[in-house]
Amino acid sequence: MSNTLGSKFRVTVFGQSHSPMIGAVIEGVPAGIAPDMEAISAFMARRAPGKDDLSTPRRETDAPKIIAGLNERGETCGAPLTAIIENADARSKDYDALRDVPRPGHADYAAAVKFGGHNDIRGGGQFSGRLTAPLCFAGALAMQLLKARGVRVQARIKSIAGIEDAPCDLAHPPLDAIAGEGLPCLDADAARHMADAIRAARDAGDSVGGVVECFATGLPAGLGDGMFDGVENRMARALFGIPAVKGVEFGAGFAAASLRGSANNDAFRVENGRVVTETNHCGGALGGITTGMPLVVRAAFKPTPSIALMQRSVSLGRMENAELTVQGRHDPCVVPRAVPVVEAVVACVALDMMLEGELSWN
Amino acid sequence: MSNTLGSKFRVTVFGQSHSPMIGAVIEGVPAGIAPDMEAISAFMARRAPGKDDLSTPRRETDAPKIIAGLNERGETCGAPLTAIIENADARSKDYDALRDVPRPGHADYAAAVKFGGHNDIRGGGQFSGRLTAPLCFAGALAMQLLKARGVRVQARIKSIAGIEDAPCDLAHPPLDAIAGEGLPCLDADAARHMADAIRAARDAGDSVGGVVECFATGLPAGLGDGMFDGVENRMARALFGIPAVKGVEFGAGFAAASLRGSANNDAFRVENGRVVTETNHCGGALGGITTGMPLVVRAAFKPTPSIALMQRSVSLGRMENAELTVQGRHDPCVVPRAVPVVEAVVACVALDMMLEGELSWN
Amino acid sequence: MSNTLGSKFRVTVFGQSHSPMIGAVIEGVPAGIAPDMEAISAFMARRAPGKDDLSTPRRETDAPKIIAGLNERGETCGAPLTAIIENADARSKDYDALRDVPRPGHADYAAAVKFGGHNDIRGGGQFSGRLTAPLCFAGALAMQLLKARGVRVQARIKSIAGIEDAPCDLAHPPLDAIAGEGLPCLDADAARHMADAIRAARDAGDSVGGVVECFATGLPAGLGDGMFDGVENRMARALFGIPAVKGVEFGAGFAAASLRGSANNDAFRVENGRVVTETNHCGGALGGITTGMPLVVRAAFKPTPSIALMQRSVSLGRMENAELTVQGRHDPCVVPRAVPVVEAVVACVALDMMLEGELSWN
Amino acid sequence: MSNTLGSKFRVTVFGQSHSPMIGAVIEGVPAGIAPDMEAISAFMARRAPGKDDLSTPRRETDAPKIIAGLNERGETCGAPLTAIIENADARSKDYDALRDVPRPGHADYAAAVKFGGHNDIRGGGQFSGRLTAPLCFAGALAMQLLKARGVRVQARIKSIAGIEDAPCDLAHPPLDAIAGEGLPCLDADAARHMADAIRAARDAGDSVGGVVECFATGLPAGLGDGMFDGVENRMARALFGIPAVKGVEFGAGFAAASLRGSANNDAFRVENGRVVTETNHCGGALGGITTGMPLVVRAAFKPTPSIALMQRSVSLGRMENAELTVQGRHDPCVVPRAVPVVEAVVACVALDMMLEGELSWN
Repeated sequence: MSNTLGSKFRVTVFGQSHSPMIGAVIEGVPAGIAPDMEAISAFMARRAPGKDDLSTPRRETDAPKIIAGLNERGETCGAPLTAIIENADARSKDYDALRDVPRPGHADYAAAVKFGGHNDIRGGGQFSGRLTAPLCFAGALAMQLLKARGVRVQARIKSIAGIEDAPCDLAHPPLDAIAGEGLPCLDADAARHMADAIRAARDAGDSVGGVVECFATGLPAGLGDGMFDGVENRMARALFGIPAVKGVEFGAGFAAASLRGSANNDAFRVENGRVVTETNHCGGALGGITTGMPLVVRAAFKPTPSIALMQRSVSLGRMENAELTVQGRHDPCVVPRAVPVVEAVVACVALDMMLEGELSWN
Repeated sequence: MSNTLGSKFRVTVFGQSHSPMIGAVIEGVPAGIAPDMEAISAFMARRAPGKDDLSTPRRETDAPKIIAGLNERGETCGAPLTAIIENADARSKDYDALRDVPRPGHADYAAAVKFGGHNDIRGGGQFSGRLTAPLCFAGALAMQLLKARGVRVQARIKSIAGIEDAPCDLAHPPLDAIAGEGLPCLDADAARHMADAIRAARDAGDSVGGVVECFATGLPAGLGDGMFDGVENRMARALFGIPAVKGVEFGAGFAAASLRGSANNDAFRVENGRVVTETNHCGGALGGITTGMPLVVRAAFKPTPSIALMQRSVSLGRMENAELTVQGRHDPCVVPRAVPVVEAVVACVALDMMLEGELSWN
Repeated sequence: MSNTLGSKFRVTVFGQSHSPMIGAVIEGVPAGIAPDMEAISAFMARRAPGKDDLSTPRRETDAPKIIAGLNERGETCGAPLTAIIENADARSKDYDALRDVPRPGHADYAAAVKFGGHNDIRGGGQFSGRLTAPLCFAGALAMQLLKARGVRVQARIKSIAGIEDAPCDLAHPPLDAIAGEGLPCLDADAARHMADAIRAARDAGDSVGGVVECFATGLPAGLGDGMFDGVENRMARALFGIPAVKGVEFGAGFAAASLRGSANNDAFRVENGRVVTETNHCGGALGGITTGMPLVVRAAFKPTPSIALMQRSVSLGRMENAELTVQGRHDPCVVPRAVPVVEAVVACVALDMMLEGELSWN
Repeated sequence: MSNTLGSKFRVTVFGQSHSPMIGAVIEGVPAGIAPDMEAISAFMARRAPGKDDLSTPRRETDAPKIIAGLNERGETCGAPLTAIIENADARSKDYDALRDVPRPGHADYAAAVKFGGHNDIRGGGQFSGRLTAPLCFAGALAMQLLKARGVRVQARIKSIAGIEDAPCDLAHPPLDAIAGEGLPCLDADAARHMADAIRAARDAGDSVGGVVECFATGLPAGLGDGMFDGVENRMARALFGIPAVKGVEFGAGFAAASLRGSANNDAFRVENGRVVTETNHCGGALGGITTGMPLVVRAAFKPTPSIALMQRSVSLGRMENAELTVQGRHDPCVVPRAVPVVEAVVACVALDMMLEGELSWN
């Protein structure tokens, strides 16, 4: 089910960068919910391109239109909720030459092999970051439902181009201290240096990557399912669906591999009649099941593969080496716009697990 | 489908650390294959406990018995291949006290919440690393099939306790240079230091973690499916099914987040009439689709949570803080035994993708 | 996955009778196919309402618009093919009173319980036969692909109101003898009597049901998968997705229950170097696997539940008995328009099985 | 997922007629349930062969052994519940000649094509009715859980060889009047005639089929999911997994196709503060969702294909016509032993739907 995420809250994304429309079909939305279109639009605006000098000049209003799934009162009715977004500012002429010479770091070549050369080359086709817009629609809806259950999902930029934001206590992430303006970091100085690094890369015709760290607080203990459907399995499967993600880790993550057990284990404590852990190196999940502590997950984004510099590639038609200079409008760093996308994906998975719910058989 | 991995080659794992048996049901095995039980046993022996002073003294022969799925000639017949392994050396008495006081770093508490206190506490129940034995059975079978297609899956220890093995060219991983004896590293000195670190942790009543790096060579370009079923999505979902994995990355992985696009992009070249990339920072997949270069994936293992040192926990019955000293037989580092497990999981996913195959409609 | 059909050729249907749009997302379409929009439109016209005096006067052009999934040359590109159809002639005012008094034979009451009263009551919401329009889009596309493989899917009306069409040889169904004009039967007299029965029911403010028999010829032997994913399992699951279907049978079907084994078994013969069966009581599948003979499946449609006669129901608000006269525009018999829908569903499932294909491992 | 049934209560069946063992892995069993092995054995005994002169003389004790999924107290623990049954009385020599000459009415030929001649021919391999033993294990467990929720699942023989049991009120099925001894019918005379018909067929070296009618009472309204996962879709998919089933219908079923809407619609009434229907032609489901009335489903079983009479077949090796006389021990009619199997399958699906439960989001 390649374009479908989730089991109870099932999001099927469709579209390509330059197809007439993109969108999502969402099955399993509880009935009786009136989507908060204002909140959804505000959330999607965080991802939309063309906001500042750090992102692509492509301008899309990204206004989702719900075409099915609501009753006459504007509430979800049990039918799949379906939303479409028009692709307005698509300039296909930029991409005409790319079918023969695949862009390094892009899916062009792999997709040409897989689809016998029929893949949609315009703007990266179905591999485009543009497909994260419907994901954000689904995520914003998921957040509306999660919020009503006391669950909050929020991400920050952990690093860009090797510049690190301040560390924080994973057991008590300071969500309100994440900047609401500019780059969403804890440390304003770090944010400034990151922005400078993006501009420097852009001016050099190059690009940079980074790491997004996402927190979900308020999740009850006991969510997730064994072995291959635990919290990490699902979150990882979902997050690798975001273009450019090359690594996913939870809690202490790769750093845990260098710790001793006595340092990495999170001691349990009783606090206000509730079991908590003193630290949160596990990132809120043990054995694939939530512990009730904040979920902490990080996704590593590679630098944007589209760069203005000349690159070495091949001509697939002539089967010989070739040079390539990528035209078009690109983000010198996808990380700032990826922050809400990571939140959206984490929210979709979190809601899915909550809807599966605990089995209250006895 | 919590205990099931794969779509065409579907592995369903069952059992607990101390259940009478553990095993796997494998649907979708091509018919007409005679399982090479010698090769399967040799592979499973790499995971089996009790081999040397670096692992748990629990001894299990781990001899899989195929109870269904073969015809009268001993070939797969299209029916689900089913294998069982007896749990011989289970000492349940070690674990009797644990139901009240959950072990830090283990699933005990989360599972108690999820399953209303009915989870199997003996030896970690279904969360035990013992469940990786049937995974290795499935993986060994997958490797037999992959080998017939020219695909080779092999892993090494990339680091233990922060001690790094030598770096290598991800575009041409030196699989034959990985040590067959002792810890499977490229650099014998590093391997020795890692072993020392494990022993030091053990002697201190503590434990260490590490990183396993796995390569799959010979995979054709064009495998994997879009968005949520690409190579990385599937591999990550599967690898997080191995107990103690807290991070998964591909190619340059998290390090890619610090690179510029011009450094991270893998230039295409024509080599012997084939399209290759000069480097392999992407780890063999772009847009979720294999490029035909080696697949490179790393899994970070946390230090074994079971340590002999006293730890802080809680009494769930009395809802008050408590202290805990874990009894039982444990690996001071799971990484050496995890190497074949990672190979097994990567092989299962790789075979699954190959069996889905390319659509030769036209 | 309630609104999704298929595994390799996956059709997700969305919409309600009176939502702005209805449509389908189709994953797994082989790349490089240019949808034959003329053939698709012609097929969908067979299902469209308002053609003659036997169907509802609601008029819909049912013109599907492909909004995603094609490359710049109009070929499928590996991305999900997505089509929308506008709901033009929806008269919601007809249905305002129905939320309190559920219509007998409709989903109103069951859906109100399931969705807490938030179900879309307008025109039957997601339970409307209107949702079969996107199914027909998917089916027409499937037929285009099947035709290129020599597979033909065609249905006839087997009976309406107890009036039976002529029997035929299930091993050699005379597809070309099915009438292309009027009711698709073999026997013109029977067709005339059926039409009369429909008109008589309509004039009495009542409705009638019937049975559709569908054939798929040209399917290779060996399709289908064991136990729960055999030919019959999949076809039945799919066909019960068509509103008003209350029974599904294959080959001799229920009549086989009265036969002796010696009469019901289909003898094998070699014919032109091919294994065939002399009869086809099994309907083209044994053990859930195609035999290479025509697939024969029948679906029983209940009489349209919407009738003009007064009916006994309840007021859910007052929890007391109530009377109901259904307003609106309804088919006195859904069977004629259901014929292409059954074909569409059978085609989708047949294509799905063909795309899964045979495992050519050795 | 060919051998897997269900979504929340997921049953994966494995084994062949003559494999060392057969069994089932059941995921999703609520934790804390102590399987009632006595009730399970009693239920399975109803299916076991060799009880009387109407069934095959093959004798199997069919004693299931639970090898995983229980905690130390014998309760389900959240891990997949796994049971095995040994194949004791397998006489493989009976089947040696069948690989070349496929048995009419059996899967032999279709399976040989699908699996390249590697299918297990012994006793029908994975297509054998023997595989219904693990289904009955799962069904008996499901019934234990359903019973605790007030749901009762019971079937009767509706007809054998065209001999019909007495009709009954589908809105109030007289479950207690179904005979507990001999053939489970309402009418003792009909039962006697059926038994005579079975013996007559047996004595003629032939076989007969029949129809099983199953009721599930006590199901709440609101179960089932839209379009392709409604009650009928799931039940039908599951029931066609029982060997020899060729038709499935609900409520009035195929007979509804001959009724007028005014006769077929079930009028709603308020009865004891509850909404009920006066009749139950719909069989307990409208729009794929339970109405709260008894679920009524019928499955048509073809006559046993294994008959002692000479039959026409082919030699696959020589590709020429051949004659065949089937050796071995066979039921002259599978219907009596199929009654508990139908109950088991209906129970598994009913429990699955109940575990998915209603979404109590608001």
